Amino acid sequence: MPTALIVLAAGRGSRMLSDRAKVLHEVAHAPLLAHALRAGESIAPERTVIVAGHDGDAVVAAARAHDPGAVVVRQTEQLGTAHAVAQARDALAGFEGDVIVLYGDTPFIRPATLESMLAARTAGADVVVLGFEAADPGRYGRLVAQGDRLERIVEAKDASAEELSIRLCNSGVIAADAGVLFSLLDQVGCDNAAGEYYLTDIIALARAGRMSARLVTCPEAETMGVNTRADLAAAEAAFQRRMRDEVMATGATLTAPETVFFAHDTIVGHDVVIEPNVVFGPGVTLEDGAVIRAFSHLEGCRVAGACVVGPYARLRPGTELARGARVGNFVEVKAARIAAGAKLNHLSYVGDADVGARANIGAGTITCNYDGVFKHRTEIGAEAFIGSNTALVAPVRVGAGAMTGSGSVVTEDVPDGALALGRAKQINKDGLAARLMARLRMAKTRERN
Amino acid sequence: MPTALIVLAAGRGSRMLSDRAKVLHEVAHAPLLAHALRAGESIAPERTVIVAGHDGDAVVAAARAHDPGAVVVRQTEQLGTAHAVAQARDALAGFEGDVIVLYGDTPFIRPATLESMLAARTAGADVVVLGFEAADPGRYGRLVAQGDRLERIVEAKDASAEELSIRLCNSGVIAADAGVLFSLLDQVGCDNAAGEYYLTDIIALARAGRMSARLVTCPEAETMGVNTRADLAAAEAAFQRRMRDEVMATGATLTAPETVFFAHDTIVGHDVVIEPNVVFGPGVTLEDGAVIRAFSHLEGCRVAGACVVGPYARLRPGTELARGARVGNFVEVKAARIAAGAKLNHLSYVGDADVGARANIGAGTITCNYDGVFKHRTEIGAEAFIGSNTALVAPVRVGAGAMTGSGSVVTEDVPDGALALGRAKQINKDGLAARLMARLRMAKTRERN
Amino acid sequence: MPTALIVLAAGRGSRMLSDRAKVLHEVAHAPLLAHALRAGESIAPERTVIVAGHDGDAVVAAARAHDPGAVVVRQTEQLGTAHAVAQARDALAGFEGDVIVLYGDTPFIRPATLESMLAARTAGADVVVLGFEAADPGRYGRLVAQGDRLERIVEAKDASAEELSIRLCNSGVIAADAGVLFSLLDQVGCDNAAGEYYLTDIIALARAGRMSARLVTCPEAETMGVNTRADLAAAEAAFQRRMRDEVMATGATLTAPETVFFAHDTIVGHDVVIEPNVVFGPGVTLEDGAVIRAFSHLEGCRVAGACVVGPYARLRPGTELARGARVGNFVEVKAARIAAGAKLNHLSYVGDADVGARANIGAGTITCNYDGVFKHRTEIGAEAFIGSNTALVAPVRVGAGAMTGSGSVVTEDVPDGALALGRAKQINKDGLAARLMARLRMAKTRERN
Repeated sequence: MPTALIVLAAGRGSRMLSDRAKVLHEVAHAPLLAHALRAGESIAPERTVIVAGHDGDAVVAAARAHDPGAVVVRQTEQLGTAHAVAQARDALAGFEGDVIVLYGDTPFIRPATLESMLAARTAGADVVVLGFEAADPGRYGRLVAQGDRLERIVEAKDASAEELSIRLCNSGVIAADAGVLFSLLDQVGCDNAAGEYYLTDIIALARAGRMSARLVTCPEAETMGVNTRADLAAAEAAFQRRMRDEVMATGATLTAPETVFFAHDTIVGHDVVIEPNVVFGPGVTLEDGAVIRAFSHLEGCRVAGACVVGPYARLRPGTELARGARVGNFVEVKAARIAAGAKLNHLSYVGDADVGARANIGAGTITCNYDGVFKHRTEIGAEAFIGSNTALVAPVRVGAGAMTGSGSVVTEDVPDGALALGRAKQINKDGLAARLMARLRMAKTRERN
Repeated sequence: MPTALIVLAAGRGSRMLSDRAKVLHEVAHAPLLAHALRAGESIAPERTVIVAGHDGDAVVAAARAHDPGAVVVRQTEQLGTAHAVAQARDALAGFEGDVIVLYGDTPFIRPATLESMLAARTAGADVVVLGFEAADPGRYGRLVAQGDRLERIVEAKDASAEELSIRLCNSGVIAADAGVLFSLLDQVGCDNAAGEYYLTDIIALARAGRMSARLVTCPEAETMGVNTRADLAAAEAAFQRRMRDEVMATGATLTAPETVFFAHDTIVGHDVVIEPNVVFGPGVTLEDGAVIRAFSHLEGCRVAGACVVGPYARLRPGTELARGARVGNFVEVKAARIAAGAKLNHLSYVGDADVGARANIGAGTITCNYDGVFKHRTEIGAEAFIGSNTALVAPVRVGAGAMTGSGSVVTEDVPDGALALGRAKQINKDGLAARLMARLRMAKTRERN
Repeated sequence: MPTALIVLAAGRGSRMLSDRAKVLHEVAHAPLLAHALRAGESIAPERTVIVAGHDGDAVVAAARAHDPGAVVVRQTEQLGTAHAVAQARDALAGFEGDVIVLYGDTPFIRPATLESMLAARTAGADVVVLGFEAADPGRYGRLVAQGDRLERIVEAKDASAEELSIRLCNSGVIAADAGVLFSLLDQVGCDNAAGEYYLTDIIALARAGRMSARLVTCPEAETMGVNTRADLAAAEAAFQRRMRDEVMATGATLTAPETVFFAHDTIVGHDVVIEPNVVFGPGVTLEDGAVIRAFSHLEGCRVAGACVVGPYARLRPGTELARGARVGNFVEVKAARIAAGAKLNHLSYVGDADVGARANIGAGTITCNYDGVFKHRTEIGAEAFIGSNTALVAPVRVGAGAMTGSGSVVTEDVPDGALALGRAKQINKDGLAARLMARLRMAKTRERN
């Protein structure tokens, strides 16, 4: 059966107290919306429709970035969830099959859960609702059900004492045949205190129309929504806990898992060791046996086995470390390929560069890659030895086995095996330091008196 | 009714195992004493008296730093809390009104709580005692009360089984009319096992004198005292939890709140984002929309909107970042004004400096601001471009739109639009690196044999 | 009574999903095996036998590193714990006395516990088993006992419902007379589902042979074993919690204890302050009154009183800071003695060096200690002043009270009181920056069109 996805992403999220749309706030370096879309991908939807509202242009951009094929429709007035879903009608014109409605602020629904919902559809249910056992049901809508047969959804404020004692609650996620869904939506009214059109009303309408409504349940953690910054932090924490457990379960050591922050897409190999206080931005792959020491920060990079990174290493996008390369403390690497066994151990900036195998980059080396307008590349040959405090003014090439003298400014290419020097000769002025210091101290004394 | 504050700060805190007075140990970069004083400020005291004892000079200095108008009196012998309060008598001579007694090692009493105590005084109570429901009453004194009418305080060691079952405990905080307080203190004796004068005895004396004693309660968390280093860490943790929640509630994102450490006075605007592992010293203001990336450390600085700070940025006192400025990794900034859109992205030290709008500071730039005795300032004009590894020997000025060549030492002013070069010409010595390395390797081989 | 120790370290630990033997995974920078050996040292064993299997050479190396006198024997086939212990027979030939069997993956057994086991032996028990009350007995073997008289050990899978309700569980740790132990081992069979020889069977054999078996108990936390990466993280967390509590109990301040990671051997003095996010490698001593600021990383170093280290300081092995020395942000120090009051405050690498008292090392200073093959030393005299961005090409000596000009490359010794300069003179090219930038921007515009 073909499937389609509707993701509701129009809400402002006023409790976020933010100028940004709620669904654009990030967990693990991806917007909440992208998490919801990824969950939805598991059903391989033929069409994906995102209903945007507040901050719509930014939502469109984020949606495109994650799924170029998604259609974004606008809900210009916020008239309730049923009204929001109805905005997808045109975008789904001609579609025949099952539709699942997800929420852009609910990032953790699992593929297996959506598959269960579709299975319930296949087994004959006209409408399928996702429920969960709430630890604290509070203001959630309650699901009145016999086994998996859903009778109705009661809002907490309308519930009897008996109904309030029900702990099975409504997640809002719904699956239905497209035709059925839109025909039910046509019947939803707004005769309630808020004057809004509620998606939950379709259950009663379905039942009234002698259609069957089924219940599928999932753990409460999957239905976690984000309404405040505290919720956002809780969602981040939940994501990180799960990710850390998964990484450890696949055979990596996290010395202090609670201090390691992964991105949504971090890939961690077997026998990788990650020390305390490591932060990952998006796009990082750590191959088997890589070691990431404390206080490191990695984004958009690949680290091969037997590499040691950190402490205090920052790998920025476009960094590739080949086997056994080392990047040490207070070193920033960007858009650079570092070949096997090369060492960048201390206080350096290596950007837009190729560093050859077993090259040794001295402390304080800077690739001067930017002239104020353009970026230029630096090439360093295999087994080259860059002396400390060398400035490499790109575009420039240091040959294989070449050396640069400490403190040199290298503006021209250095042939293979050559030594480049670009520094002034030292002059010692005897006694001058002592005289200078005496004069300064005297001035200080005068100043004080 | 005029109010006065007495803060007891004489105890040594022997369980801290410290050479420093207990009240000088810090939570969120302020001494415990300052927290207590700040709590007391909410009643707008006419006079504030601090009773110091151990490490008195340091306590005086800390008290002055926080409240120049506070009077510090010395308790030279440690004869109990009643004796300590009595030391404030002369400093309060002529004062008529309500006195509240606080403790220098109890940092979290809330203004509303003190206001409730004063309200109880206004409503006619002669003495008001602050109590709390203890989760684990243990060795706390128990409050025997009828409703809010306090009958007596029983020390745990003197309590009957029935009294021990009371969970309402004594915080030690007391409010009373000044005249009443000192007249009751005159009657307190030291006929007990420790031979000390206990402030709690004034309740029994008040009741015996047909005065009324009232009870005001607060959550146990407010009465948290510090007696050990573990208590200190717990107080810090409590402060941080509260502060993080407050910051999120006002519309800032903390990716991992448990890894962000605020100072007592950090100000965080709306839509600010703070990534994991950020530490604040005192005196920081983050304006709306500022982004603080991971592993940053900020003290005494102001960061405007659209600024990006970090990762690994250290902003020291006197730093001001105007809108859209960027301070990147392994960069230290001190006593510097960074104008709008200026960039200090990599491995630099910028101290005692003015950096103009949209100026670009290359990697490895150092302002040489100290000659061993004096500090000097560096001025960098708007849209100036400082080449990598430039040393700027202050006092020096680089003009607007000027550039410095990579690796230059700039000792003289650079006119607007000029290019300053201060570096030796590069010489390549062909084959020399190869020969040098061969010679060194041979020496190594000889050494091994 | 002489004692001997057998440590079982042969298991592969397949649930670790690692190429390394399980006992070589580290907690607090020491392999699990070393923790077990250290626990065993408390009984002052005459002989220590480690039974290695998987990854045997690496286990031998780790064992030697921790205890050069230990004998490592190989269990080439994994035929069960009794078989493993039996491998120690030859290594204990001629030994008469008590043997304790420990596990290389169980790092936290306390000395007092082993002493209790030996005391039970002395009191006449033939075999002594270490048990614990399990919060969740699950699959642990149950100890059927009358008081401290052990009747038998029942595996969970063989236990009756009544036996399953027992919460007293088997740790596997055993003490026995050497002769008794090996004679019982001779009788252990492998007639069970796994076809393995189980050490626990010796209890039934002992009882059948009219020998006495006694039970000694310890808290469950001591018996914590490591089978997965999650267990390893939990063991690390348990170690750190205990260590942090101990450090605070001896009078040090940990601002945020949960963010400080100690090594197994860190020594922390009285009135030391450790700010958030500090990581210790092995071999660190902090003397009374040292202050370690946030984001610092220390290994193999000694820090005297009144020193301030960090934020963002990295002290590597061989660093010694004398009283009042300061190492500031983005500074790496290695194999260096820093004398009293010397300052290395900003972005420097000081390796293989001696820095004199009150010397001041400017920002961006680099000791060029490596020529590609050899390491050389740098000496800096008392009260010397190293200008910013100085490269010190070792071997080199800067005399007492000498200075180096900012941006100098110092290749020759600088006499006491002299000023060394090694930099080119600055030239300003008027208007050139403006022309260059205009040209670059034009090129950029062309590129875009």
